[in-house]
Amino acid sequence: MNLEEIQDPSFLKHYTNKQLEQLATDIRQFLIEKLSVNGGHIGPNLGVVELTLVLHQLFDSPRDKFLWDVGHQAYVHKILTGRASQFDTMRQYKGLCGFPKRNESEHDVWETGHSSTSLSGAMGMATARDLKGTDESVVAIIGDGALTGGMALEALNHIGHEQKNLIVILNDNEMSIAPNVGALHHILGKLRTAGKYQRAKDDLEWLVRKIPAFGGKLADTAERLKDSLKYMVVSGIFFEEMGFTYLGPVDGHDLDDLKNNLNYAKKVSGPVLVHVVTKKGKGYKPAEDDATGAWHGTGPYKIENGEMVKKSGPPSYPSVFANTLKTIAREDERVVAVTPAMPGGSKLDLFAQEFPERMIDVGIAEQHAATMSAGLATQGMKPVFAVYSTFLQRGYDQVVHDICRQNLNVLIAIDRAGLVGADGETHQGVFDISFLRALPNMVILNPRNENELQHMLYTAIKYDDGPIAVRYPRGNGTGVKMDAQLKQLPIGKWEVLNEGTDAVILTFGTMIPVAEKAIENMTAQGYNVRLVNANSVKPLDEEMLRTIAEEELPILTVEEAILQGGFGSAVMEFYNDHGLQASIKRLGVPDWFIEHGSVKELYEEIGLTPERIADVLQSELPQKKKRA
Amino acid sequence: MNLEEIQDPSFLKHYTNKQLEQLATDIRQFLIEKLSVNGGHIGPNLGVVELTLVLHQLFDSPRDKFLWDVGHQAYVHKILTGRASQFDTMRQYKGLCGFPKRNESEHDVWETGHSSTSLSGAMGMATARDLKGTDESVVAIIGDGALTGGMALEALNHIGHEQKNLIVILNDNEMSIAPNVGALHHILGKLRTAGKYQRAKDDLEWLVRKIPAFGGKLADTAERLKDSLKYMVVSGIFFEEMGFTYLGPVDGHDLDDLKNNLNYAKKVSGPVLVHVVTKKGKGYKPAEDDATGAWHGTGPYKIENGEMVKKSGPPSYPSVFANTLKTIAREDERVVAVTPAMPGGSKLDLFAQEFPERMIDVGIAEQHAATMSAGLATQGMKPVFAVYSTFLQRGYDQVVHDICRQNLNVLIAIDRAGLVGADGETHQGVFDISFLRALPNMVILNPRNENELQHMLYTAIKYDDGPIAVRYPRGNGTGVKMDAQLKQLPIGKWEVLNEGTDAVILTFGTMIPVAEKAIENMTAQGYNVRLVNANSVKPLDEEMLRTIAEEELPILTVEEAILQGGFGSAVMEFYNDHGLQASIKRLGVPDWFIEHGSVKELYEEIGLTPERIADVLQSELPQKKKRA
Repeated sequence: MNLEEIQDPSFLKHYTNKQLEQLATDIRQFLIEKLSVNGGHIGPNLGVVELTLVLHQLFDSPRDKFLWDVGHQAYVHKILTGRASQFDTMRQYKGLCGFPKRNESEHDVWETGHSSTSLSGAMGMATARDLKGTDESVVAIIGDGALTGGMALEALNHIGHEQKNLIVILNDNEMSIAPNVGALHHILGKLRTAGKYQRAKDDLEWLVRKIPAFGGKLADTAERLKDSLKYMVVSGIFFEEMGFTYLGPVDGHDLDDLKNNLNYAKKVSGPVLVHVVTKKGKGYKPAEDDATGAWHGTGPYKIENGEMVKKSGPPSYPSVFANTLKTIAREDERVVAVTPAMPGGSKLDLFAQEFPERMIDVGIAEQHAATMSAGLATQGMKPVFAVYSTFLQRGYDQVVHDICRQNLNVLIAIDRAGLVGADGETHQGVFDISFLRALPNMVILNPRNENELQHMLYTAIKYDDGPIAVRYPRGNGTGVKMDAQLKQLPIGKWEVLNEGTDAVILTFGTMIPVAEKAIENMTAQGYNVRLVNANSVKPLDEEMLRTIAEEELPILTVEEAILQGGFGSAVMEFYNDHGLQASIKRLGVPDWFIEHGSVKELYEEIGLTPERIADVLQSELPQKKKRA
Repeated sequence: MNLEEIQDPSFLKHYTNKQLEQLATDIRQFLIEKLSVNGGHIGPNLGVVELTLVLHQLFDSPRDKFLWDVGHQAYVHKILTGRASQFDTMRQYKGLCGFPKRNESEHDVWETGHSSTSLSGAMGMATARDLKGTDESVVAIIGDGALTGGMALEALNHIGHEQKNLIVILNDNEMSIAPNVGALHHILGKLRTAGKYQRAKDDLEWLVRKIPAFGGKLADTAERLKDSLKYMVVSGIFFEEMGFTYLGPVDGHDLDDLKNNLNYAKKVSGPVLVHVVTKKGKGYKPAEDDATGAWHGTGPYKIENGEMVKKSGPPSYPSVFANTLKTIAREDERVVAVTPAMPGGSKLDLFAQEFPERMIDVGIAEQHAATMSAGLATQGMKPVFAVYSTFLQRGYDQVVHDICRQNLNVLIAIDRAGLVGADGETHQGVFDISFLRALPNMVILNPRNENELQHMLYTAIKYDDGPIAVRYPRGNGTGVKMDAQLKQLPIGKWEVLNEGTDAVILTFGTMIPVAEKAIENMTAQGYNVRLVNANSVKPLDEEMLRTIAEEELPILTVEEAILQGGFGSAVMEFYNDHGLQASIKRLGVPDWFIEHGSVKELYEEIGLTPERIADVLQSELPQKKKRA
């Protein structure tokens, strides 16, 4: 069928299995084609085609509520709710969002992007339903990886206790973004293979019925019984213990198996966990065969063979991070890397090739990662907690209470700092400067290119006075020449990149080239603007700030971070604290959530452009000339 | 023995049980006496006397590491490590801290205050140990309440997976601060009572040995076997499933039972969970009989009968909060209160008396509480997430990603905002303005007294444009008359409390009376200072700020919150954004962690006093007069 004609999922109600199967095929074909152009989360979506079809057939969305955990697996849901025709705009500026979005459709009742939120959201919705006395179903669809997030476990514990009607679909694809970590993973593994022990379980029940008060000899049956006991124990008992009715494992690509179990789940009183086993990339061989997780989310690819369209360019910031860490770790035995389920994204898998014992993947567990790093630091190790800016929010109290307050030598490597582009508002890394700068003992560095990054990492490892954060952006470096020798940089000392006596731009990181371009244009017009690489966000270079004040130069701060409480505010606070006068303008991320689009488009939207920098400076400069 | 003579715990090594018992009696007597004077966490400490003695006898602290989760139960540990003589200063300014503190003793290897951090810290220490190739024991002592925190569950999952040698002592006193919530609680309940089924379990094993291949008739034995199966299943299987060796339940007041199990735990390879059942308040009848949790942490009391020394005074902020919410909830069915294990502290227990269905205690689970509130809000409810400022840090990403980003109508009632006094640096509520103000869609209000609080809560419930936070301090209100009728206050409109034309103080909450006193003194000296109740921290009263700028009055902002990115910075940002000139000075909490002491002493330490306010203003005023 023409998927673009679908308005809403009601047509599914009377579909036969045969029709559903054909539709599944059409949807897979559609996804494979559409995503080959712009990329997207193809693996997770190919895995949930049948599950999504059956959910929309058996339940009545939007009356019944679907909460897609993380949300990158909601493409099929988007197709079935009338958005197929917009797929060419997926993850593009002003286009379809890659995650559920309430202003796109009434069927998107819960927005996500970060993991492990769906159970709590569902519990809120179920509680509201019961207070209002209605009877809709609330269904959370959560992956096995997201289940290890502490928040999901908190919710599991609470839901099991309250016994509200609520369906949790555990979408178990044996691999979240990274191979799964944790004891829960083993439990799921046991459950997945429990099917073949069904017979042993039946045997046990038969035996129980037949058992005599006394008698006979120990035989191999006893051993069999012991095994049976064991498999009774593993058959969902973990979830049963948590207060859930456990159904499964269900074959996530078998329509009847899905329907039988989900129909039963609807009838059960109290919380139900339906354990659905799916295959990531199902129906597209290159994605099915994926061992490295490259098909979780991809860029463009060739449909016929799955060949990814290669991006050439300078090394990415994460790869420079990981390689530098490897170099340092060869000399410094204290270095241990900790990642919350991002060995690939953070490139720590490169580090682990050489130091498998010194790279610890804790699973999706940012809180634990942060505080475990604190624990390592108490014993004289030098933990490097590698985390995306947006996910560091998940470990904020741990940074405050365990790392900063104990003033421990933890290096926080903040990846994806700044705007991230296509992943959009849930993933923008724009708050970290504000929320970290408020904390005593914290040092925050931000390199302007990959060469400065390597020296900063070295500097941060050598720094032994407490926590230190090095933040760097998503994507490729600038292509600058890499120094062969690592060196320590002075902390709290900025660098003048361009001399100038009319005005000063204080900026760092990604905004340096933008400022350089602005200065280029201004120089052509006869202005003489100083450019400072303010690579130490906390502490500031107080000496330089004093000098600038003495020179009475107008200052423009530029940052790819939220303006409230950001770097520009820090500069104002410094002058204010010391009773110094300075004329300051600030550019940065404004007080709203920035949606998806290319980083360049987003810069345009919020005015982080050479033109805007030049405009603001020029509006200041005549004033200065008048004063002079 | 004279406890004050203890230097370190090595003397315990050869103590007999009889000696230990006598020492336990002496310690209890000491605690009951000392804490009767200044108060403290008596219940938890009386509960762990034997446990702490046995730990220090069997292990070698500080070589072996003890991590006390939350840490308020470390008094006995402090006595045994040479700090009994300082107990008179406990929780007093510059005195002994109420929690483990690394600069107090080498035996305090992990600082706490917030819950659920010990397992992650222990995992860090165990990992460091294995990388370094040493063999010390790492022992985390965690309560049953703290175990429901998502971070502890993340750690449990990771520890079970990694199989490192690590001992978790689950100190199960059947009650954390509030009665325990969650499915885990039921699991522990089952474990606690499993002892009496030991025989059934033994029966089962006997049967398994005797079982014939076929035979006999179904008898009552079969039923018995089924029960036995069930109890095998509950005997620690949850923790065994998570990858731990489960030992217990152990009687936490029986020295032999403790020693046998802890000695065995030392020898087990891989992680061990020792389930120790203790009685809070053990050995002091008033505390043992405590049903309401009042003896968890107390003020001074009379030893002979446990009568608490009554503090009279105005109603506390939390009680005004809860009573106001009750009034509002009678009219507004949307109101639902959510607490993370603080029904008593937040006084929501008062609310629950009338609306039991509309008060949801989720246990120690701030993340879940925040996001569940978001879920409630999507369904048109008006959730009130009541949380201490310092614990809100635990739910930061949930506030960012789930509440603010979705712009949901969640009221965050931030209790204990500002300095909290005796609980010290782990509990100071000084970061919330900075970390919340950075977030789009967030509104932050702060009342100056309990009467303004009630109107603000009413205002916040009526506000339907997104999240809104109302922050209020620990302790009693000001004694102001309470209006009979609730009314809506304009958001972003401040109030002039005292007219004046020489200067303006912009402040809010607890700092209003301090500023009033400063103004009183200045008035006596002929100064004419305006006082503004800046009760809306975000948004600011932009109109008033413009007027002040036009009047060219020097401004002093005063806030009981961290200065970086705080209210004063917001005022500077406003003027900066709008190109307005203003002369601003800022007072607030400086860039270090503030230790324990009375709030008054802490005000002195950081200069939040009438004298300092007057000094700063006077240093500005001559300047102004010169200019005029």
